[in-house]
Amino acid sequence: MHAGLKAQGKDVALVVNDGPHQVGAAVFTRNRVTGWPVQWSREVVADGVISAVVLNSGGANACTPVQGREHTRSTAEHVATHLGLEPEDVVVASTGLIGELLPIQTLLDGVTAATGDLSGTGGDDAAQAIMTTDTVPKSVAVDGEGYTIGGMAKGAGMLAPALATMLCVLTTDAVIDTETARTALARATATTLDRIDSDGCMSTSDTVVLMASGASGRQADAEEFTATLTRACADLSRALIGDAEGATKEIAVQVNGAGSEGAAEAVARAVTRSNLVKTAMFGQDPNWGRILAQVGTVPPEVAAFEADRIDVAINGVWVCRDGVAAQDRSEVDLAGREVHIQIELHAGAAGATVWTNDLSHAYIHENSAYST
Amino acid sequence: MHAGLKAQGKDVALVVNDGPHQVGAAVFTRNRVTGWPVQWSREVVADGVISAVVLNSGGANACTPVQGREHTRSTAEHVATHLGLEPEDVVVASTGLIGELLPIQTLLDGVTAATGDLSGTGGDDAAQAIMTTDTVPKSVAVDGEGYTIGGMAKGAGMLAPALATMLCVLTTDAVIDTETARTALARATATTLDRIDSDGCMSTSDTVVLMASGASGRQADAEEFTATLTRACADLSRALIGDAEGATKEIAVQVNGAGSEGAAEAVARAVTRSNLVKTAMFGQDPNWGRILAQVGTVPPEVAAFEADRIDVAINGVWVCRDGVAAQDRSEVDLAGREVHIQIELHAGAAGATVWTNDLSHAYIHENSAYST
Repeated sequence: MHAGLKAQGKDVALVVNDGPHQVGAAVFTRNRVTGWPVQWSREVVADGVISAVVLNSGGANACTPVQGREHTRSTAEHVATHLGLEPEDVVVASTGLIGELLPIQTLLDGVTAATGDLSGTGGDDAAQAIMTTDTVPKSVAVDGEGYTIGGMAKGAGMLAPALATMLCVLTTDAVIDTETARTALARATATTLDRIDSDGCMSTSDTVVLMASGASGRQADAEEFTATLTRACADLSRALIGDAEGATKEIAVQVNGAGSEGAAEAVARAVTRSNLVKTAMFGQDPNWGRILAQVGTVPPEVAAFEADRIDVAINGVWVCRDGVAAQDRSEVDLAGREVHIQIELHAGAAGATVWTNDLSHAYIHENSAYST
Repeated sequence: MHAGLKAQGKDVALVVNDGPHQVGAAVFTRNRVTGWPVQWSREVVADGVISAVVLNSGGANACTPVQGREHTRSTAEHVATHLGLEPEDVVVASTGLIGELLPIQTLLDGVTAATGDLSGTGGDDAAQAIMTTDTVPKSVAVDGEGYTIGGMAKGAGMLAPALATMLCVLTTDAVIDTETARTALARATATTLDRIDSDGCMSTSDTVVLMASGASGRQADAEEFTATLTRACADLSRALIGDAEGATKEIAVQVNGAGSEGAAEAVARAVTRSNLVKTAMFGQDPNWGRILAQVGTVPPEVAAFEADRIDVAINGVWVCRDGVAAQDRSEVDLAGREVHIQIELHAGAAGATVWTNDLSHAYIHENSAYST
């Protein structure tokens, strides 16, 4: 719905689980400063039951006075009253400017309208309603064995750290229990939504919700379900990073040869957070020295490696071997949108990939010209 | 001297300690990937004796093959031979592109010329010779009690983390012993050169050297000397951050009310590393929500605080009290070049300040259009 929280465009979305099951799980930002909706929703999901998710753009309701808490509660209650649900089963997710109270009546009127306009084909409208600086809506549908997983997401950051808040709602008609929902969501997001980093900033409001209705009547295998959910999350992750603020490059930083997956991830995150690496990619400059310098910032207790054993490839060209120049950097083709950075530590057998985008003039413009 | 390592401009500098004492100390980057000059110079300073520092721009000699090590050694030997010194007392510092060998004969010819052109009034030329993307040379002279401290620096980053390598040479005619030199330099840099952060990136080559000749004949008091050295380092730090790549704002992030100085510093660093805070400052937008969101990213084991106790002021206007909006953000004047962000944690009595600059279009241009 367009409630009027934003000057134009849809700004309120409502996703309802018609059952018969009401299984739910969620993950949230790790920021210690959180919006009221995150604090409310953490309590909602504690019992593994989620009946609906109400989302709004146009204001994050974070760092707002205690009335903000009442606004979140009354939003959930409003949904519950109209749909005959328990408010304690309604997740609330808000995104937009931090520090300002939402015009609560405007929001509630929008919620009322949304409850009257629920539809099995409203997914695209919902995906539009949660957009902030997104330029395109993001949604996905993946088939599992006898069931489907659908999802929508907004944002240009990562789950943690992240800013430009990530909101994501995943639904499925699979039959799964609460524990499977929780474990599958944790595992699926750990290698997808939690591994995209647009600008290294962590949001106050990141929320990823999974609701399982069981409507297919098909009991899902936990491993198979996790794999299917991971595919859905990976697809949304890719869409988020591809639409990140000002992005002209989608950069995958893949670290191999690490002593542990955590070590590989730490090294990859160090590279994806480097403004110098990101501006080099924007400039289509295969500047492997900046990559190696970022690898070197990771403390030895976090990732074991020897600086003079590291190899680096950019788009398949091994520009650095054993910590020094190898193939000529002029062989690297950075004209396309996709960039693949490979880092081989020669310190073990573990690997991890983190995705980011370049740092462009458009990012500066978007984040300096507007309050968000 | 202009040796020809750079297409134009001076690129080799030589600073010699005429004695009678040869006391020296140095601090280096904490990056695990370091240039050969850093590895060489760490050994040089181990015995507390430094007779000369030879510096070049036009190439960092980092991530270069083993010939790079020979180049650094031969540079030191070249200085030593011409000046009758021990090579093991000559610090070498190089800055510029990572990954490419220096044209060693060009460098040695420049060093030869420099040894023949030593002068008591060559400081300004030397400060120019170490510039890379710096737009102005940085030097300082501070009077202590009966002695003087002089210094020059280049760079647009910080000591650790840092990139756009910081090179800094400090000289004094005070009479101090090695232990005083080491302790004073460690203490002085800890709150100055180590607390500036232009883009969160850590260089492979940062080097800060102190040489004490004792020529004044005046024994310096350790505390007084430390204070004077700190003033000199603070002055150079200010000059570095003011000339950081693309900077239009000089931003001091001051955290008070922390449980420890380390906690205060960690919170301040989290804020100075935020692209969203830095772009907001570029856009003259007093967006305190982005500041609070960064504070929230610091883990509880690093800094104790409650999110709903935090106050934030921008240029003296307390836009946030107890984690929510307070004075109107429109009262904040961000038209000037200097920005003062104050964060009160209400969790103790310790404080720390970290300095940064804004993130501007000029930064993107400078770091995407050229290999550095």
